[in-house]
Amino acid sequence: NYLLKHAASDNYLLTVADLSQELAVQKTGNHPHSVAMALDINNDEYRRKIIEASDIVISLLPPALHIVAAGDCVSLKKPMVTASYISPAIEALNESAVNNGVLLLNECGLDPGIDHMSAMEIFHRLLENGAELTSFKSYTGGLIAPEYVDNLWGYKFTWNPKNVILAGQGTAKYIENGRYHYIPYNRLFRQLETIEIENAGKFEGYANRDSLAYRKHYKIDHIPTLLRGTLRHEGFCKAWDAFVQLGLTDDNCIIENSETLSYKELVQSFLPSDTKSNSVEQSMSDFLHCEIDSKEMLMLKSTGIFDDKKTGLKNATAAMILQHLLEQKWVLKKDDKDMIVMVHLVDYLQSGKAHRLTSSLVVKGNDQVQTAMAKTVGYPLGIVARLLLKGKISLTGVHLPTHKDIYIPVLRELDSMGITFSEKTI
Amino acid sequence: NYLLKHAASDNYLLTVADLSQELAVQKTGNHPHSVAMALDINNDEYRRKIIEASDIVISLLPPALHIVAAGDCVSLKKPMVTASYISPAIEALNESAVNNGVLLLNECGLDPGIDHMSAMEIFHRLLENGAELTSFKSYTGGLIAPEYVDNLWGYKFTWNPKNVILAGQGTAKYIENGRYHYIPYNRLFRQLETIEIENAGKFEGYANRDSLAYRKHYKIDHIPTLLRGTLRHEGFCKAWDAFVQLGLTDDNCIIENSETLSYKELVQSFLPSDTKSNSVEQSMSDFLHCEIDSKEMLMLKSTGIFDDKKTGLKNATAAMILQHLLEQKWVLKKDDKDMIVMVHLVDYLQSGKAHRLTSSLVVKGNDQVQTAMAKTVGYPLGIVARLLLKGKISLTGVHLPTHKDIYIPVLRELDSMGITFSEKTI
Repeated sequence: NYLLKHAASDNYLLTVADLSQELAVQKTGNHPHSVAMALDINNDEYRRKIIEASDIVISLLPPALHIVAAGDCVSLKKPMVTASYISPAIEALNESAVNNGVLLLNECGLDPGIDHMSAMEIFHRLLENGAELTSFKSYTGGLIAPEYVDNLWGYKFTWNPKNVILAGQGTAKYIENGRYHYIPYNRLFRQLETIEIENAGKFEGYANRDSLAYRKHYKIDHIPTLLRGTLRHEGFCKAWDAFVQLGLTDDNCIIENSETLSYKELVQSFLPSDTKSNSVEQSMSDFLHCEIDSKEMLMLKSTGIFDDKKTGLKNATAAMILQHLLEQKWVLKKDDKDMIVMVHLVDYLQSGKAHRLTSSLVVKGNDQVQTAMAKTVGYPLGIVARLLLKGKISLTGVHLPTHKDIYIPVLRELDSMGITFSEKTI
Repeated sequence: NYLLKHAASDNYLLTVADLSQELAVQKTGNHPHSVAMALDINNDEYRRKIIEASDIVISLLPPALHIVAAGDCVSLKKPMVTASYISPAIEALNESAVNNGVLLLNECGLDPGIDHMSAMEIFHRLLENGAELTSFKSYTGGLIAPEYVDNLWGYKFTWNPKNVILAGQGTAKYIENGRYHYIPYNRLFRQLETIEIENAGKFEGYANRDSLAYRKHYKIDHIPTLLRGTLRHEGFCKAWDAFVQLGLTDDNCIIENSETLSYKELVQSFLPSDTKSNSVEQSMSDFLHCEIDSKEMLMLKSTGIFDDKKTGLKNATAAMILQHLLEQKWVLKKDDKDMIVMVHLVDYLQSGKAHRLTSSLVVKGNDQVQTAMAKTVGYPLGIVARLLLKGKISLTGVHLPTHKDIYIPVLRELDSMGITFSEKTI
């Protein structure tokens, strides 16, 4: 919508390509400055033709498929923009992208994206004023707006549910007071920080992937503390950890006869043999060492995970079954609105004095299409695309939006649309 | 050695191909019935020529590479034998193997291998006598012989150390009393069974991978209990679980500056921030909720994991560092001998009465080359190869050694070499 809105004044044509022609047409709404087309990304010849006929490519493909389009973009000298993390495969294209004078701009959505841009704006401003950065912690959450919370988890799916189910698998890395820290998945939802944000409430944050890489990306190589994290409403993580400890977030092991299994039986099959009591809820609370009427147990019960209902899913993993269940419970109602919360906590020394700068962003959705998530992921991509068309960005190679030429105009345009950070320093 | 010994009487030539010509020659010792050659398995043309010139292929490649040789074996109609689990890629060759009249015989070593063969012999004997099988549990351990135990873990590396470090990652599956059970990795070393074996001692067993698949392979689809597991000396699993909970068995996340990090610093970087005391050992015992002088802590300390020594490993994962440390501590001394322990516990009903048959195998190594592990993995492969050469096996397709034509002669030959199961029934 953003790109269509500016198509006439900027004089460009927007092509939307999707595996389904119908979905592509839904997106363009037959706007006079648009073309909607069907495209199978694995059709090399056709994909190459479409990229060749374009000036810029915005890839909203599943992350693993960006590389397919990126190869063409480099050889055909067309800049590409994505909202995804730089993958090793994309990183490997850096040299040929530089040689061909092409920009592959990644991590240009919300998180990663707006977080990088807003952080860099703060860092550059402070450093130019002679500050010494001592700590940077940044948290983002894609949540339901508090006034629409009607379940114990304070959570509904406002973006890809699978990413929520599998979030955090692997080992998280960060640095605190000059010491590296690693958190394995089985402890990720137990090592939390409480974050309070004005006009938004109290949240808990857990570490997100590899924070260490961003010391280099942000060019603050020697900052003693750097942590990027994810926000949830208070209480979410403790209950989610119960699923993790039980093993229900595993996406590799196929569950036998999963179709005719009830949710309750699934839980029983993951409980240790020695905790079996007559009631699955009693066994579960024994396993978790909590009371059967604790908040945690009530949260678990509210998902339907102890119900006799059959999953109806063939050849499914536990993670697929859990996702299927939660997709029925954590669904946005017609009038529900989502909310994005982002907060940067920047500690620095200036003239020998310690300061803490807190910069926060709260964005709520307009409706179920123009969600806060859709706006904050989509606008930066659209804004960057317009900047590229106007020749305002001269970078080449594989990049993040950490350069002034990118983040200054993007943050300014976001601000003009009401996506505005609020900042205070103590 | 086994195949060279019988080469003259059976009238065959043994070709040993290795990436290194030198290693190949070491194996054949220029025996007159042998050829030693250098072979890069990824050299398609040369590999195909060598397979074409052979009657049988025994693949001792790393498991992921079997498929490369297997494709040639099928198209060139040469039977192949391995000691590895059937992979989905190998399984997918079944139809073309059957069409070409070729046998791809897998899981033909110790575990998997001798365990299948000895179990099938018991099952067929009991079923032919009209028994109803109610439970099958089978455990195997590759251990150090008890008389050479000189560390608190009762463990030394007698085979691939990496497999020991990464053992159990994923979710284990088994069935007990007709109910499926799943154990995630973070609980695998806590759900143990105690196993006592005559003339060998007391062990603890943990579940090994997917036991459920073997109900089909063994053609005992309706047996209410089936579990395959791994044996360790008592106490091993509790202490190993400390490494798992800490996160030190992760093989994906690269540790920053791993080369100049000390083992102690590695432990500190994985400990939760809130358990940091002045001493890493105190922090660790707090984390584990045990006394600082508990057996578990003494076992951990004995590995050197709390030492100030630097790892010296560049770009290493925690699992690589842990392996490097343990390879220095858990090393076989010159005169140490290894030990294989296998036990089958078979419960059945006969004439309305419940019986338990216990069949166990204890094999000790001769020396550091002719280890118990080398013998029990290698002999079945050699015996099967000789049977194939003599035309004694007429199966085609992808198989396990669960057929009488295979297990009867193999077990008989093993018995003649002193690899003999001892059985009792109560």
